[in-house]
Amino acid sequence: MVKNRAVVLLSGGLDSATILAIARQGGFDCFALTCLYGQRHRVEIECARKVAGSMKVAEHRIMTIDLAAFGGSALTDPEKVVPKGALAQTDPHIPVTYVPARNTVFLSLALAWAEVLGAFDIFIGVHQADYGGYPDCRPQFIEAFERLANLATAAAVEGRGMYRIHAPLLDMGKAQIIRKGLELGVDYSLTHSCYDPDDRGRSCGQCDSCMLRLRAFAQLGLKDSAAYQDVHL
Amino acid sequence: MVKNRAVVLLSGGLDSATILAIARQGGFDCFALTCLYGQRHRVEIECARKVAGSMKVAEHRIMTIDLAAFGGSALTDPEKVVPKGALAQTDPHIPVTYVPARNTVFLSLALAWAEVLGAFDIFIGVHQADYGGYPDCRPQFIEAFERLANLATAAAVEGRGMYRIHAPLLDMGKAQIIRKGLELGVDYSLTHSCYDPDDRGRSCGQCDSCMLRLRAFAQLGLKDSAAYQDVHL
Repeated sequence: MVKNRAVVLLSGGLDSATILAIARQGGFDCFALTCLYGQRHRVEIECARKVAGSMKVAEHRIMTIDLAAFGGSALTDPEKVVPKGALAQTDPHIPVTYVPARNTVFLSLALAWAEVLGAFDIFIGVHQADYGGYPDCRPQFIEAFERLANLATAAAVEGRGMYRIHAPLLDMGKAQIIRKGLELGVDYSLTHSCYDPDDRGRSCGQCDSCMLRLRAFAQLGLKDSAAYQDVHL
Repeated sequence: MVKNRAVVLLSGGLDSATILAIARQGGFDCFALTCLYGQRHRVEIECARKVAGSMKVAEHRIMTIDLAAFGGSALTDPEKVVPKGALAQTDPHIPVTYVPARNTVFLSLALAWAEVLGAFDIFIGVHQADYGGYPDCRPQFIEAFERLANLATAAAVEGRGMYRIHAPLLDMGKAQIIRKGLELGVDYSLTHSCYDPDDRGRSCGQCDSCMLRLRAFAQLGLKDSAAYQDVHL
């Protein structure tokens, strides 16, 4: 039986490793797309390679797109400071780690590849519980993109299929995501979450992304096997 | 008086030179964005530089984004043939020069830059009269992207403004576009339209884009000053 194809946005982080496992379990032949967008945590690209390899994707592409040239985010601008020690989600403002239009750009590239592949399913690992502050991690954004995809492409307009943007983690918390991934055999030691790793790729343990990850593993009574700068974490 | 900023997608072609002139006439401080996406007609990038210079934009950025890696279009795949000698618009199918999700990718990048610049106006030179075959040149696509932009970004969600996607050429024909541009002082000799130029950058005169351009200049009783391979055109 020929499997349907899916494009999976794979950052190398914990969430995207989980959606890749979910897409695979859903019976899709998975094409993983990783974007090298000028993020300071480039170590995640190597993690994406390892995750893609461990999950036997049909193909893994790494696209370079220099969003850092635009700036506007602590994740791409070395002059900006990544907040440490307190979860930004307790702040009513959108965190400085927000990258302008990042998920719109990523989904656009996934759509371009999907159309060429004849894939109509695109997976993205956004979830609103932990990152309520990011506008492009909300269900209304995902729905609007799906609507756009079905107007934007020859494949949809010519009736070859309808695009579906899958965001299976949307309503899940971090611990729940990890539990799901472990059930599906995800090896989280291959993944990277830290926004501000040192030059050896070790996680800071203090940024939002590290804190959410560490808290989730602790909630599950598990030890996170990622490498941290402070070995006592 | 401080002018509002606008991001203008500038390909180096005739249409985008015209929208830059329209945006400038509309009182915007213009930031031009050109995408080097693996198109075979890269000569248009040099044209974009000249057009941006002649119109005194506030800034001109050239972004590299390798859509050719995905393939799927005669414009990015050297194995595919650009149709010559008959307008593809007379064919009910979407032309092979369609680049999957191209305008979605371009608008996403324009949105990313606009958000960083504090711009809420984005100009794109699509028009449906000549290119009815391209799904991402239709008003419903533009409207869907505008809706997405206002859900996707911190600037919109935090109420700093509402994005507007301007497609002022949408209902215009090519001759009408040129007439408008000439009124606004556009120098069309700086622009490039051909999909398949030779290695000296001269236009073929036979592809859809050349035929539409030549026909429009002829309708206006004007001579096109672009360089053609056949000097008798």
